[in-house]
Amino acid sequence: MQIKACLFDVFGTVVDWRTSVSRDLAGFARDKGITDVDWVEFAVEWRKLYQPSMEEVRSGRRPWTILDVLHRESLVALIGRYGIKGLSEADIDHINRAWHRLDPWPDVAEGLLRLKKKLIIAPCSNGNIALMVNMAKRAGLPWDCILGAETARAYKPMPETYLSSCRQLGLPTSAVMMVAAHNGDLRAAKAQGLATAFVAGPTENGPGQTTDLAADSTCVDIAAASLVDLAIRLGC
Amino acid sequence: MQIKACLFDVFGTVVDWRTSVSRDLAGFARDKGITDVDWVEFAVEWRKLYQPSMEEVRSGRRPWTILDVLHRESLVALIGRYGIKGLSEADIDHINRAWHRLDPWPDVAEGLLRLKKKLIIAPCSNGNIALMVNMAKRAGLPWDCILGAETARAYKPMPETYLSSCRQLGLPTSAVMMVAAHNGDLRAAKAQGLATAFVAGPTENGPGQTTDLAADSTCVDIAAASLVDLAIRLGC
Repeated sequence: MQIKACLFDVFGTVVDWRTSVSRDLAGFARDKGITDVDWVEFAVEWRKLYQPSMEEVRSGRRPWTILDVLHRESLVALIGRYGIKGLSEADIDHINRAWHRLDPWPDVAEGLLRLKKKLIIAPCSNGNIALMVNMAKRAGLPWDCILGAETARAYKPMPETYLSSCRQLGLPTSAVMMVAAHNGDLRAAKAQGLATAFVAGPTENGPGQTTDLAADSTCVDIAAASLVDLAIRLGC
Repeated sequence: MQIKACLFDVFGTVVDWRTSVSRDLAGFARDKGITDVDWVEFAVEWRKLYQPSMEEVRSGRRPWTILDVLHRESLVALIGRYGIKGLSEADIDHINRAWHRLDPWPDVAEGLLRLKKKLIIAPCSNGNIALMVNMAKRAGLPWDCILGAETARAYKPMPETYLSSCRQLGLPTSAVMMVAAHNGDLRAAKAQGLATAFVAGPTENGPGQTTDLAADSTCVDIAAASLVDLAIRLGC
């Protein structure tokens, strides 16, 4: 089956959340005169609350809730834990939207533009539509449409997130390739019949990263060095 | 309130469905040796079944169903009524996707590109995601994302279609402008608090068109001559 569309994981695969969030928060804190916080550590702690917050929704204990809301609840908890004082509701909203202001890895825009010439390209992220749209406009990500958790009303790695994205493109799963820097994401996509491409992002979790350093050949069709490399492999 | 996003009606406002569908069908029929059908009339008859088919869904008599499915049912009925013989299921699928192959009005791409520099631009159409994505790739419509009936699971002019699109952008309705060549669409959007722009499309229904020749000032904030004119009026 010929590939007609590529779906992309975003946090870690397309954008560098760890560097972007910590730099964004550090800049805001400097302007506000907030000192003595390690903002890289803060970003990592925020990200640690990501999976547990989505698990409440996946498990059915909580009704469908977009990531901007989950992120904000986690942020408020962290602000309390770090004892950061004096932030207004508008300040917290601004900090929360740091996830809308993430920078892409170096060759992403070029790779996406090449892929877009022959294929449909769309995020299939757990980020909500507004987050993805604002990120794309700022970072120049030329998506054809925004798919993923919000259009599926299900968080990855639930099967429905992948299946709904393919269905909304009017394509069989075998004509769609999931692209991610995370083997777990690709394993879940492969289980639903999608083709898969691993793109290495070995510094997503900092210099000491120990997971997802290489593709798991049991669930990965193409292991690419970058999105430009993937475009070349797909004949784009 | 400053406008942050423009939502667009598509059939008739952005693309010329009447000319495009009839030309597409005439070409296919010629290749298949089908003669003696007035394809402009056929396209108009097909379009006449559009509102009744959506009304089944709006009324709740039928569960949520995307437009590609409704269009295909209407097409099969029309093929029977016209007595057209010898079409395979694949032929019918191909003809149905004529709605994915619509040509834009002349200045649309330029107007959208200008608006996109400062604003989020997205369709808010009753067309489904695959239809909108395929149309956009073929016609060069540079949408930031695809919103509308399928992401809202409600057909315009139901309030939920407009409200859901604004919510998915994370914007209050007052920061969003609905753009359409149809006063009825704008009346429904205005009732939900959106700003509105009328863009004249007086040949959508052919040379004898009698409706929507001018903006209804009771529900229209800006009456523009074209999308380029609208971009200029919005300072883009």
